[in-house]
Amino acid sequence: MAVVGVSADEEKPGNRFLRAIRAFGFEGELYPVNPDENEILGLKTYPSVRDIPAPVDLVYISSPARSVPQVIEDCVAKGVRAVEIFTAGFSEASEEGRRLEQEIVRLAKGKLRIIGPNCFGVYCPRGALTLLPGANYPSESGNIAIIAQSGGLVDQLIPAATGHGLRFSKIVSYGNACDLNEVDFLEYLASDPETRVIAAYLEGVKDGKRFFQVAKSLLDKKPLIIWKGGLTESGKVAVNSHTGSLGGEQAVWEAFHKQTGAVMVDGAEEFLDTTALFYHFPRVRGRRVGVVGGGGAVGVATSDICERVGLKIPTAPPRIQEQLRALLPPNGTSFKNPVDMGSPLPPPSVFQKVLEILLSGDIIDTLIIDRIFFYGGLQPMGVPAADAEKRMEVLLDIERRTGKPMLAVLQEPAPDTENIDMEVSRRKVRRRFLQAGIFVLPSLDRAVRTLSNICLYYEKASLNHRESNHEP
Amino acid sequence: MAVVGVSADEEKPGNRFLRAIRAFGFEGELYPVNPDENEILGLKTYPSVRDIPAPVDLVYISSPARSVPQVIEDCVAKGVRAVEIFTAGFSEASEEGRRLEQEIVRLAKGKLRIIGPNCFGVYCPRGALTLLPGANYPSESGNIAIIAQSGGLVDQLIPAATGHGLRFSKIVSYGNACDLNEVDFLEYLASDPETRVIAAYLEGVKDGKRFFQVAKSLLDKKPLIIWKGGLTESGKVAVNSHTGSLGGEQAVWEAFHKQTGAVMVDGAEEFLDTTALFYHFPRVRGRRVGVVGGGGAVGVATSDICERVGLKIPTAPPRIQEQLRALLPPNGTSFKNPVDMGSPLPPPSVFQKVLEILLSGDIIDTLIIDRIFFYGGLQPMGVPAADAEKRMEVLLDIERRTGKPMLAVLQEPAPDTENIDMEVSRRKVRRRFLQAGIFVLPSLDRAVRTLSNICLYYEKASLNHRESNHEP
Repeated sequence: MAVVGVSADEEKPGNRFLRAIRAFGFEGELYPVNPDENEILGLKTYPSVRDIPAPVDLVYISSPARSVPQVIEDCVAKGVRAVEIFTAGFSEASEEGRRLEQEIVRLAKGKLRIIGPNCFGVYCPRGALTLLPGANYPSESGNIAIIAQSGGLVDQLIPAATGHGLRFSKIVSYGNACDLNEVDFLEYLASDPETRVIAAYLEGVKDGKRFFQVAKSLLDKKPLIIWKGGLTESGKVAVNSHTGSLGGEQAVWEAFHKQTGAVMVDGAEEFLDTTALFYHFPRVRGRRVGVVGGGGAVGVATSDICERVGLKIPTAPPRIQEQLRALLPPNGTSFKNPVDMGSPLPPPSVFQKVLEILLSGDIIDTLIIDRIFFYGGLQPMGVPAADAEKRMEVLLDIERRTGKPMLAVLQEPAPDTENIDMEVSRRKVRRRFLQAGIFVLPSLDRAVRTLSNICLYYEKASLNHRESNHEP
Repeated sequence: MAVVGVSADEEKPGNRFLRAIRAFGFEGELYPVNPDENEILGLKTYPSVRDIPAPVDLVYISSPARSVPQVIEDCVAKGVRAVEIFTAGFSEASEEGRRLEQEIVRLAKGKLRIIGPNCFGVYCPRGALTLLPGANYPSESGNIAIIAQSGGLVDQLIPAATGHGLRFSKIVSYGNACDLNEVDFLEYLASDPETRVIAAYLEGVKDGKRFFQVAKSLLDKKPLIIWKGGLTESGKVAVNSHTGSLGGEQAVWEAFHKQTGAVMVDGAEEFLDTTALFYHFPRVRGRRVGVVGGGGAVGVATSDICERVGLKIPTAPPRIQEQLRALLPPNGTSFKNPVDMGSPLPPPSVFQKVLEILLSGDIIDTLIIDRIFFYGGLQPMGVPAADAEKRMEVLLDIERRTGKPMLAVLQEPAPDTENIDMEVSRRKVRRRFLQAGIFVLPSLDRAVRTLSNICLYYEKASLNHRESNHEP
């Protein structure tokens, strides 16, 4: 791999990229290119790509925009097949930039493929490839792929994703998409055996028809989550100055969603939450939600919010209500579903029986646990502290035995600087749950919105499956 | 203060309450009442309220429901003026409970006032009063009041609120509201000099007309935030079994909002975020938002989300754009507003000038800062780590000099258990910002939604003010 435009200045992007990819553990040869230096970071440096005395598979370009056409010519001459262009200042910036971009497309056509310009490139842990700021990104692979027109967004998502326990197959930041674009990446990932879930942040789409076809073919095979930026008037202006893309119409994307089943989300939080839930959850069979909570307004809040997003909270049949009534205190509790145990600190044995009873009838498809304390520091006086861990073990055990998809709300307990121990405990519990496939979010709002997204997807997928098999 | 129904069993509510209020630092005399014990927790115990050999101001009742009418009679005989009834099992539970509740109302009428039943009671740090689980609630007062039909909700909100730097004047959990209800509390808080912002979680409203009048009189005096539970069909069922209340109609509450200016929110997160922003922010003059961010899709995301909730992002005039253009790199940046500095790690001096330039024209009412790093641990190689703190000082200084309302998005950086140091840093920066009146939220979505809530409120308040002064 060659890196064109590496300065000896440690603050410049080429230098930073070279150090990042070495720190990340790239195992191939690295060739810095800079006509004014002989050696950078201890590596022999070449005046141009043509001068490198070995085959080059990939070239990372961070030299100034006006120099890029010459670099592309050098790459073609050298037989390079692919380049990533970090450099900005092309169609997103000015008319002159637009002409430069057309020029490099012309030079590359039929000879090499371009990712970018104005992008961060590819993060692919299996190939030990990383982006400019990504020296510390996880080195293990997972089965989520992200395509994102914004590289900065990727750098925002990856650290946050590690908290959800996520790992990735490939992430592509592709900027202006002058050659390879979102459809190419989507098509590649559709058939990539390493990828099971695909999430895309798009500003513009170059070939709507093909994009639609590939997206449609993914339904019931790999969930596709799309955050489309620039659907409002102000957003369109911002998109244009960010990657030179055209925004798009809300109505078009709603129709796209209806016909492809792709999950449309708004904003970084919902984008990541939804992707993470697909990663951790098995296929969800329907919209029927069971809720077990511990007091507060948990029953009311869950009911209101589930109904607003189209989830169902079926009333438990009399047999289940009677069994719960025999087990729980008569007051401050509710047995109908939502099941309100009256306190976030129920005795572990009671918690276990409540879960077993609620899951004994086939009345729900997923289970939400809200406002039950699974870690210490929140026990009031008189409640055994060890019970918290026992409640966690109870939930893990029930999940193992029933395989029921479960989502636990673990609120930031007291997010003050002094109480950092509780935050540590919360993260430990979260990790245990995530490892077991129990999804965790910090608020009920986010949990329900995310669950609704994946329920609607699987419903659409099943319908599609039945239609294509001519089943009733 | 007497506590009726205190068992020697440390897990029972009466005992827990007694210990909580002592631990919280209540300074008056405490009289446990229990006919079967002589001493509980080292305090002399009385067979009934009548037997206490001193005046009693307030009685906390946690004895079984069927015993409560007798306790009320004893209180009346003793000349007690107010009781809090923790005990549940009244109108929310059964027909028999409903009759019991009517009985205690009849016994108390004209003689003493009741909070509850089925409630946690009052938290009032100035009076050293706290709720059952609230031994560790903050002992300092603030100027926010909460009225909440659900006590468990209060116990969920208070710890979370400390992370927002909030402190409270009074919090009332009032359950079934058989005597004193939401209107009484609202009326009291309207004229309470200690209270500046009022937030209410309501399940039902007993006297709609009076509630409307009091709410309307608050406009432009004290912001009123309302989370109304039970507006959906499932929610209605849940409120009925929670506090025996009637849910309500969405349309009625929309009209209520239009006519009173009360801010309507959904869910615990928006409830607390909005209350906190009113607490920290000065009066906001309008909907015009300036955004300064550091790369990623910050410009696009902010533009889309602001437009969706009705906020305006005015394009900076040419003079400002030119000054920014002279200062920032030409590529990967944007000068129009949102101002994208291209990187979350701008040099502090550049960050300062950008803020000064953007604020130099009177084009915005509030400023959102997103994706700028204010603490260490996120610097890639080649960027001075001390710059993070300098950027924080720059923002604090600009806020001091301009008084412009500011909202900073501080994302959870890498919420994995191993990276807890970064979380500690984040909370320290948050605290510095909150102390200076710069509001902080962990995501852009929440920041914009919250800002929109308070902008609409102040707009309504100004309109009302002009109307009542016959100004044009």
